[in-house]
This record gives sequence, C-alpha cells and structure tokens, in this order.
Amino acid sequence: MTGAEILLKTLAGNGVEVCFMNPGTSEMHFVAALDKVAGCRGVLCLFEGVCAGAADGYARMTGRPAATLVHLGPGLGNALANFHNARKARSPVVSIVGEHTRHHLTYDAPLSADIAAFARPVSEYVRTVMEPDEVGRAASETIAAAIAPPGQVATLIIPADLSWSAADGCGPVIARAGRMLPSQQTISSVARRMTSTRTGLLLGGTAVNDRALLAAGRLAADTGVRVFMDRYAPRLACGRGRFTPTRIPYFPEAALPLLADLEHLFLVESQAPVTFFGYPDSPSYLLPAACEVTTLAERTEDGTGALEALMEECGAGSAVIATKHSAPASIPADGPLTAKSIGAVVAALLPEAAIVSDEMISVGGDVLPYLIDAAPHDELPVTGGSIGQGIPVALGAAMACPDRKVVVLQADGSAMYTLQALWTIARENLDVVTVIFANRRYRILDVEMRRTGAHGYGELANQMIDIGRPDLDWVKLSTGMGVAATSATTVAQFSKQFGAAMAEKGARLIEAVIE
Amino acid sequence: MTGAEILLKTLAGNGVEVCFMNPGTSEMHFVAALDKVAGCRGVLCLFEGVCAGAADGYARMTGRPAATLVHLGPGLGNALANFHNARKARSPVVSIVGEHTRHHLTYDAPLSADIAAFARPVSEYVRTVMEPDEVGRAASETIAAAIAPPGQVATLIIPADLSWSAADGCGPVIARAGRMLPSQQTISSVARRMTSTRTGLLLGGTAVNDRALLAAGRLAADTGVRVFMDRYAPRLACGRGRFTPTRIPYFPEAALPLLADLEHLFLVESQAPVTFFGYPDSPSYLLPAACEVTTLAERTEDGTGALEALMEECGAGSAVIATKHSAPASIPADGPLTAKSIGAVVAALLPEAAIVSDEMISVGGDVLPYLIDAAPHDELPVTGGSIGQGIPVALGAAMACPDRKVVVLQADGSAMYTLQALWTIARENLDVVTVIFANRRYRILDVEMRRTGAHGYGELANQMIDIGRPDLDWVKLSTGMGVAATSATTVAQFSKQFGAAMAEKGARLIEAVIE
Repeated sequence: MTGAEILLKTLAGNGVEVCFMNPGTSEMHFVAALDKVAGCRGVLCLFEGVCAGAADGYARMTGRPAATLVHLGPGLGNALANFHNARKARSPVVSIVGEHTRHHLTYDAPLSADIAAFARPVSEYVRTVMEPDEVGRAASETIAAAIAPPGQVATLIIPADLSWSAADGCGPVIARAGRMLPSQQTISSVARRMTSTRTGLLLGGTAVNDRALLAAGRLAADTGVRVFMDRYAPRLACGRGRFTPTRIPYFPEAALPLLADLEHLFLVESQAPVTFFGYPDSPSYLLPAACEVTTLAERTEDGTGALEALMEECGAGSAVIATKHSAPASIPADGPLTAKSIGAVVAALLPEAAIVSDEMISVGGDVLPYLIDAAPHDELPVTGGSIGQGIPVALGAAMACPDRKVVVLQADGSAMYTLQALWTIARENLDVVTVIFANRRYRILDVEMRRTGAHGYGELANQMIDIGRPDLDWVKLSTGMGVAATSATTVAQFSKQFGAAMAEKGARLIEAVIE
Repeated sequence: MTGAEILLKTLAGNGVEVCFMNPGTSEMHFVAALDKVAGCRGVLCLFEGVCAGAADGYARMTGRPAATLVHLGPGLGNALANFHNARKARSPVVSIVGEHTRHHLTYDAPLSADIAAFARPVSEYVRTVMEPDEVGRAASETIAAAIAPPGQVATLIIPADLSWSAADGCGPVIARAGRMLPSQQTISSVARRMTSTRTGLLLGGTAVNDRALLAAGRLAADTGVRVFMDRYAPRLACGRGRFTPTRIPYFPEAALPLLADLEHLFLVESQAPVTFFGYPDSPSYLLPAACEVTTLAERTEDGTGALEALMEECGAGSAVIATKHSAPASIPADGPLTAKSIGAVVAALLPEAAIVSDEMISVGGDVLPYLIDAAPHDELPVTGGSIGQGIPVALGAAMACPDRKVVVLQADGSAMYTLQALWTIARENLDVVTVIFANRRYRILDVEMRRTGAHGYGELANQMIDIGRPDLDWVKLSTGMGVAATSATTVAQFSKQFGAAMAEKGARLIEAVIE
C-alpha cells in the first residue's frame, strides 16, 4: 500500500468516517486512495474554512472526529478561524495537511512555508511525519491526541512523497478514553454546599445536554441553587419541557447584577465567567470578588455524570422541575419582519430534534428567548467568537445527523466569511435551511462602537459598519451556489417560506430582510 | 489625541493612504478616528483575505505600503493565505491587528488567542504595543520594517484600550531607504562573463519593469546572453514592443531542457530556479549541476540599475532589440470559446497600460503567449502559489491606479476563495473587469494527479476535483455582490462582452464558459 492508503485505512479503522477536504497537488494520492480504501468518505469544500467549521459541527454532534485535508501552509491558514472555534469547543478534529516532498523542502519554492507554525495557534498537537513507515502510527497517535478528553484539533503534516511511497503497517485502533467522574470526596463536598440561592452551578463543555439539564434542574428545585450555562458551550440542549439554565448575558451591565449575590460558584466543565471583550470602566471578571469558585468537574471529566452523582448525593432525584415554558409557541400576526417575529415563527415551526446553528450575533438577544418555547432541539453557538462558522458547522452537523433538520440562524455580515459552504450543502443534498438576517450592517459594531466610548462617529466610520451600498442579494448568492432561495420582508412571507422549508427535506435559504 | 488617532495620523504622515479593513469591536476607535484624521482612507472588505490581497496589489503597483486592519487572531488567520503571497512578492504592508484590552488578556475569553503566533508565518516583524505613548513610535517602526528593501508584511498588534487611551506623540516620518546598486566590482566581474548563449540572466523582484527589460534586451542583443524571468515575480512588464524574457516553464519536463546548456546564471533580485512542486523521478532544482550561479543584484538591491550599469559596462547601450512580436493581435473568428480564443480576444482588446491580475492556473499556458502581442501592460502573477489572490490583488491595484484599466484573468476554482472582493470593487466603483474561466474543475489537479503518479483515479477521487455538480453561476454570484455580469459560451459573445467592458469604465464580470 501507499502511505496515502495507509493513512486513509488508519482513519477508517478508527471510525473517522468523513474527511472534509480542499486538496491540492500534494494531497493527490490521498484523493486517489478514496477509490481504493473504504470507510472514510471525502466531502469537497471550496474553501478551507468550510472544512474546518464542518469538522467542528460534525464533532459537536457525534463526539467523534472528522478529518480535514488541506493544502500546505496557506490552505491551513484559511482554516484557522474556524479551527479557533473548534479549539474553544474542544472538538476532536484530525487535521491533515499536505506538505511539499521531503527533497523539495530544502528549496524556497513559492508555496514553501512553516506549516507547523500555521497550525500551532489552534492545535496543541502538531506532528510532521518524515518516513513512510511512520504514517500509520502517526495517524493513530494524532487521532489519540484529537479524542483525548476534552478533545482538540490535532494536526498531522505529511510530505507528498510519503503519500506515494510504499508504506508498511496501518496504525492501531485507538481505544476511546472515557471521561472520569470527579472523586466521591469532591461530590460529597460540593453536595454539602448545595443549600442556597447564593450558590450557583455553571454548566459548560459537554454538560449542557438532556441528562445534565435534568440533574441540574432537580438540584435547583430541591436545593434552591441557581443554574447557569456557558453561552459558548459547544452544544446546548434547548426547548420546551427542558430545564433552562440562565444564559450568562453577553454584556457586563446585565451579567454583573445577575451574579452579584453569588457566594459560591461550582464549575461543571467550564470556567469562571468573563466578558467577551474588555471595556472601559467595567470589569472583565464577572463574579463578585468574594465569590468562591470550585470545580465540580474539570473539562476533561464527565460533568454530566458528576451532576447526576451530585443529584443523588443531595437526594434530589425525584424533585419536580419547574419549567416556565411548556406551551408551543404560536405564529405572530402579519406585519413587517423583525428579529423578534422571526424568533416567534422559528419557535412555532421548528421540528422536534432540530439542530440550530446559531450565528445571529446582534439579533440573538431578540431571537433566543423565543426558542425556549420551541420543540426540543440542540443549539450550536459560536464557541470562539470567530465569525463565519454558522453555515459550515451546520454542514458538518447535517453530515453527522442526516435524519435531523438543521436550521442556520445566520447574521448576514458573518455569513459572508464562509458562504462557500452553501455549495457543499447543495452538492451533498443536505437538509439544511439557512435563514439570513439581512440587516445589511455589522449591527453589533454599532453597539460596540458606543460601548467602547467612541461616541458620535461620522460618515467615514459609518461606511466601515454599513455592509449595504451595494446590498448583498442572498437569493442570488445562494442560487448561484445551487441552494434554492427566497426573500421575505413580512411575517407572512417568512412564515410561509420557513414553514415550507420545514415541511420538506433539502437545502433552502431564506433571506429575511429586517431593519 | 487617542492612541487610535495617533496611529492613523502616523500612517497618514508616512504616506500610507489607504487601509483595507475588516474591523471588529477591538478596532472601533481606529474606525472612529477616520472622521477625525485626514489622509488615510478606510476601505471595507467583507473578508480579511480580501484586505491582505488588496494591500499586496496596492504595494505591487505603487511600491508603497497600504495598511490592513483586522480583528484579533482569527481575523488575521483569514488574511494569512494572501499575506503569504505578499510575503513572497516582498510587498510592503502595514498589518494592524486589534487585540483585547490589556486587562482582558489575563482571561481566557472566547476570542483570546496568540495573535503573534498567527502573524509569524507571514511576517518577520511582529510587534505588540503595550503602552499608549508607544503607539506612534511603534507605528513608525512598523512602517520602517515594512518598507525596508525588499519589503515585507510587518505586523503591529494593538490592545483595544491603547486605542481609546490618551496618547502622546505621532511617530516620526520614516525616510524611505533607497535600494543600493551592487558594487562596481560585481558589475565589472559579471560584464566580463556576458559572452555566450550559455550564460543567462534571471530577472525577478522589482527588475521586470520597462527599464530593466530594455537593458536586458540590449544585453541579449549585444552579447548573446539569454534572459529569463521569474514567473513568480510580483509585477511583470509585458506586451508588444517590449523585450520578452523567457518565462521559466512551470513543469520540469519543459524547464530542464531549456536550461540544460547553461554554464552560468546571473541572478537579478531572484534565486536559482526550482520547480513549484516536488515530483517523483524528477529533480526540484532546475539548473544543471555544473551551472555556476552568481548574484548580480540581491533582492534588497536595485536590480534595474544593476542591469543598466551592466549594459553600459558591456557597451550595449545602443544595441537594437529584436522583438518578435510587434503587430497588434486580431480577434479570432467565432466558434466555441476556449482558453486560446479568450487569450486572442484579450490580447486584441486590452487597452494600453492595463493591469492584468493573473490567476489563470491551468489555462495560463494557453493564454499567456497571446498577451505578448497585447498592448503594453503590467501582469501581476500569483507570487506565492496561494490561490484566491486574483480579484483582491486587482482591487488593490485599481485603488492604486484609478486611471488604468484592471483586468482579472481568473480561474473559477481559485475565485471561490475570495469572491467577496467583488463587493468592495462594486462599492468603490473600481474599473475592474473580471473574466472567470469557468471550466468547472480544479483542472490543474487533473494534470497534477497524473504527474504525481496517481494514475487511473476513480469516481470518488474525481468528485474531489470536479467543482460542477452543482455548477457555480458566476453571473448570480457577481450580481449578488453588485458587480454587473454576463456569461459567454462563444467567441463572438465573449468578444462583444469583453469589448464593451474595455470601452467603458466600471466593474464588470464575464463568466467565460470553457471545456
């Protein structure tokens, strides 16, 4: 076998079932191997940031790594923004990067660059293979690094000639290391302090799922503790009937009073909350100085199991959770389309078990409260604040869960960074419905401009925030890449279009024009 | 003044007239300063790779740096691919990157990342300012680093709170360091060996301009030396009436015999030629082992002046250059559109002093020979092999030279990496005509697949190279971003559309559908 075939076989043998790729010359033998080795499917993306976001979305939905394949340093450069989000999501990803042949590395050819240096900002494990017979083992060890809890982007750099050389030995199958529970001592110690509304639990990491919410909700009902969730956790179980932790607000003005009376915060796969950005005259750290912070479960541990053990320890296993929101939402009357009316329509029509990729940015605050009333669903937020993840993550989630409807709630400015994802969604015929919030501004920057104290900005500054002039036509952009699209400016139009998209399978885009 | 105003004023004071930007929260005060400080204009791009490519194009046409402004590590990540090309072009660029506030840096906020690590693969000068009063001087020193011959991407990282803090002192105006001539001894020594067709000159860097070509052409006519040019030089003077050096072929099969009888190669702002990629059974180094290599002018030196001095030293100043190509090209008869017929039409209709941004990839070999007969023009090739530079570099060139027609000859696959550049071209109403070679494949990979020895690839591999299914509709993609567009499938249609685009000013795109 060639090195490329060994690599692909090692991936497939380890259950890496899909490789999101944008290959070049150095990766041709890997591509050729797709027809010779079964078990790992190639999915072509027209921009590397799409590969990275798709692998992140796939990992968030399955807990298993996808592979990505990109071409040399600059190709990896294009993947970094979404790999940054994957890093913050602790998503396992096997990032394979083709390199020049070994004998070519001594020359300063045009594409020569320090690939490992490109990888390091997003990947703590970076390995360059230099011998054909090492390919199999290196691939397995890269997979091991990717899946070791809590998960990471692990990078494997392979010179082209290793791919075409004869190589020996597939890499071994890596046993998946389970997450450990915290010690009984930790759980008992935390349980003794679950006594007051001045005590909080902060859920993050993998511990914002159904089981974790049930346990946390019972703890809240039984002991009075308050339960918060990290708004940047990779995957949040949401919707009616579920216990809904308090999402820590984005802006410090809202977050600080909410947390002001906390005396003790227990972290479940999370960290003490800080603001997204630093601002003049407000702190980054959101807890009161006197609040004690204790880790119930590290990011590498089983936070869900820890919450269940805590619930048992507190004797809260039969507590009845008060869910404020249990009635299905209803579609609002016709009128001009707004973020709020979109939220109401989506909440009313979202099917059960949908996956919502959330890159709403400025409109999220208006829409998210409605989704608490939607049918139970999973929300995939932007974990690392790097925009351009919404559509790629949805693509990966749809590949992972072909039987679930995927809805992208997507700001227009952010959508432009990785709009190429639409093409792959069309090609793979995925059940992804993208709603573009077309306010034609970097609206969040209007807010941030004021908050950072840059008052009274003028027309030149305004032009750097206005993404109209000319307006982007999302119907054209989407259909230009093969995804059927419509535009809506009223509630009735949007309801009809979104309803139709929910009722059928397949890729659709709706440009929702709002103020 | 605020730190942001100091920064902008220092840029303007140093003749940095334009800043291609995609700002975020951390850069809001810099944006606000645009209305307070004159002299440096903000140009909004909807993706950071567009900023980087535009700055590169601007620098190639002016020799002066533009600034770029991007948001934190991931924003810089998106710029790296085109900064890689700028690095290989030795383009001076002042890359400004916003960072979290200083007090926020101690927290692991979602967007926290090692920005300097993101910058290093493309930027040898990376500076993080940590005090407001250092902003002005740091900006000047970054400019100095950017413009020091041969030129580079120099990076300045600025925490957000420095931008809103009161700061003292604009940075000084940096004197532009001239390029030095090589020593008289070097020139005399080279002149003595300008005697035979087994001697070659290889022009690169800034030394493929009118003056350099005139001197090199006279040297060739007078002494018989052969003149080559680096196909990856940042800017090539081309077209009829000009001396045309031999472009060293892309593939080693063609390059090796061409160079086989060379006994001595003199480098002018260039390096000994190597292949683009390494291949099985063919060497990367393209010169015969016995060929001596001597530097006439380093990349930091004045290669053009060196060629002129050499010409004088050889007494070749009045030699008559044999230009094979002097008749204007003519438009071919109607028929199905091909890369060759497009080449002929473009050569016939290209106006004098046009700027051609060349990202043709697989069709370049068919088109470029025609352009030797076109009116005198400048060609901007892909210097670092990182695709997605064609349209952004054209945008920057058009900002630099508003009175010159800019034509982008652009492969479809490569165009998809940075198609967002079309929006800025529309907004700025630039005179840029983009021709998309729509062969709907990564065609170059068909060639490379064979060359790397991966014969007989199957349908799964083919799908990773086929970018049809669905076809991209470039008329929709372009008009969706505000650039008028048409499609052509015959020579007559293309001639008419391209002719109309040459006859008027403004942004246009032509989708040229070819096999």
